Amino acid sequence: MATHEKRSATDPRVKPQRSECPIAKTLDILGDRWTLLLIRDLLYLEKNRYAEFLESPEGIPTNILAERLKRLELAGLISKSLYSEHPPRYEYKLTAQGLSLKPVIDALIEWGKKNFPKTQG
Amino acid sequence: MATHEKRSATDPRVKPQRSECPIAKTLDILGDRWTLLLIRDLLYLEKNRYAEFLESPEGIPTNILAERLKRLELAGLISKSLYSEHPPRYEYKLTAQGLSLKPVIDALIEWGKKNFPKTQG
Repeated sequence: MATHEKRSATDPRVKPQRSECPIAKTLDILGDRWTLLLIRDLLYLEKNRYAEFLESPEGIPTNILAERLKRLELAGLISKSLYSEHPPRYEYKLTAQGLSLKPVIDALIEWGKKNFPKTQG
Repeated sequence: MATHEKRSATDPRVKPQRSECPIAKTLDILGDRWTLLLIRDLLYLEKNRYAEFLESPEGIPTNILAERLKRLELAGLISKSLYSEHPPRYEYKLTAQGLSLKPVIDALIEWGKKNFPKTQG
């Protein structure tokens, strides 16, 4: 699926931006209960297909999954490629910009492990 | 406002928990567009009163602010104390557990600065 459309986290279609603060702008893209779990799935759990994301134990609803994948692609954090034509199916992977979220994910995991000590790593 | 009720991030009233994954549990508390901005306000912008949070440029709606403060208190991440009796007004501050979110906030700020280079620090 070649596209000549520029993808960027600053694309106004990603989310209306609330202020000029870098953390606010970041949360305009990532600040919800699901998006960073998709980044986790891609980064650490070797998931990259729609059906694989659906299998994660949190049970993301299909409409939210579709919307979040679209938003992450528009923001330039993931890219997609066709792996089946009939029916059309896509594989997703993190772009370099998406991979650069690793320190954010790691800080959340670290905090979670410390504060929910009985949880799984 | 002394309370003998135990506050904890594992309190089921904070949010229903979706899985045993530490990042999912963390996002059950913090995963929305506003909560981490309140932590930012408390941690870096020396805001600790209701009216001060309302003044932040993102324009948090009052009902969301009230709900988030309640949830953060229930999770043990902030504590409140009365500073005016008539009318009753509270000051909020981060607990040790709330302060331990600094690496998460810093990672988000760092990513935001890198990805939105024209934004303010």
